[in-house]
Amino acid sequence: MSTLTPAQMEEALRAVGETRYHHLHPFHEMLHSGACTKDQVRAWALNRYCYQRIIPFKDAAILARMESTELRRIWRQRLIDHDGEIDDHPEGGLRRWLALTDGLGLDRAYVTSMEGALPAVRFACDAYVAFVRERSLLEAIASSLTEMFSPMIIKARVSGMLKHYPFVTPDILRYFQNRLSEAPRDADFALDYVKKHATTPETQSAALRALEFKCSMLWAQLDAIQHVYVNGAPAPGAWAPGVALRDAAA
Amino acid sequence: MSTLTPAQMEEALRAVGETRYHHLHPFHEMLHSGACTKDQVRAWALNRYCYQRIIPFKDAAILARMESTELRRIWRQRLIDHDGEIDDHPEGGLRRWLALTDGLGLDRAYVTSMEGALPAVRFACDAYVAFVRERSLLEAIASSLTEMFSPMIIKARVSGMLKHYPFVTPDILRYFQNRLSEAPRDADFALDYVKKHATTPETQSAALRALEFKCSMLWAQLDAIQHVYVNGAPAPGAWAPGVALRDAAA
Repeated sequence: MSTLTPAQMEEALRAVGETRYHHLHPFHEMLHSGACTKDQVRAWALNRYCYQRIIPFKDAAILARMESTELRRIWRQRLIDHDGEIDDHPEGGLRRWLALTDGLGLDRAYVTSMEGALPAVRFACDAYVAFVRERSLLEAIASSLTEMFSPMIIKARVSGMLKHYPFVTPDILRYFQNRLSEAPRDADFALDYVKKHATTPETQSAALRALEFKCSMLWAQLDAIQHVYVNGAPAPGAWAPGVALRDAAA
Repeated sequence: MSTLTPAQMEEALRAVGETRYHHLHPFHEMLHSGACTKDQVRAWALNRYCYQRIIPFKDAAILARMESTELRRIWRQRLIDHDGEIDDHPEGGLRRWLALTDGLGLDRAYVTSMEGALPAVRFACDAYVAFVRERSLLEAIASSLTEMFSPMIIKARVSGMLKHYPFVTPDILRYFQNRLSEAPRDADFALDYVKKHATTPETQSAALRALEFKCSMLWAQLDAIQHVYVNGAPAPGAWAPGVALRDAAA
């Protein structure tokens, strides 16, 4: 591979998203088109809590590796966005995710215990935290570039879920509303960083592989959810419909 | 939970295996009963290489945490079993696994690169290495106790595969032949260790959860293989039939 220009590098990164981002995953097609049962939506929200949970871990791990005050000032906004403020005013992304699982009738302590989450989902999330700790800062930042692709999926998700599921309201989907403004800001910064610092065939290849890795960890989560909750594969110890619902939702 | 006697503890550990070990996984039923295609057997062997690969990593990580010379002398046998000797006489378990992938016609460099392995399988394997590094020595040793259950599955596998697949020979299954004597020896030691050191409700519960964790990482590997290679789910970048076969096998 020869060295790409910054514009070619951006094109190559976008091509990874077009072929590997989880907007292509069949479970998302189901979720957005109204083909999921309420329990399948619950299984998705419950499991994806594992991913929401590790976002501040991975951002803190990236922050902890940044030598530059300027970079750290920018990256810390991600922690503020996800963790919010004391007393939850304003609340952070993690609390907004719990508004979704609350709205679906799932017991909050059960969700945050991750007791019923699928092991494969937890393994994928742990792999992401390990990746940003162990790889270069460039690769860690490049792996965040799935945020370039998230606005398109979020728009389809919010409109599709509001249209098709009577149990979904704009209020319980407020996590996504906030991400529509946060993600492009974060992605613009990370894309500039990667274009500026990936300037050799080796570093460009590493950045592209990092984005592929990130796509694969998102994909693996949906595979696990689909395998168990759509295809009906047995899942020893995992959440089952009827479990950990609040009284009103039972 | 009250404190269990050593005999009750053994019974509780065996109950984990009876309900969660991957002898219950539908993919194994297919594999052993002759219901798999040759490409499905290849996908299984190719992916399980990821697990074989990390066995010396996890054993070295456990060894590195043992204060006692006596314990280390015993545990080091596992490294000898898996890595063998210089010039491969006798060969170790990892080479024996490659005899299986060779025998199935897979290119050895492709297998060991893990390029076509499923991300979910790699995530599960990495989770196991992280587990034995981060948890207590007792939990790390308890997680090895799936070896109590492996002889039963190995016997069914060897006889089933030899009976049903014309492309399988005793020689390419020699990995399992060796495990039939190694696994019980290893399991006996680890079981004695756990019964001796897990003597409070807390440590007994931790040991049982560790064995559940181990069962879940084995299970997650088969889920991923079944999802893609039996159910036909898309798998961006993963091995596909026809890829990386040696000429004679193509």
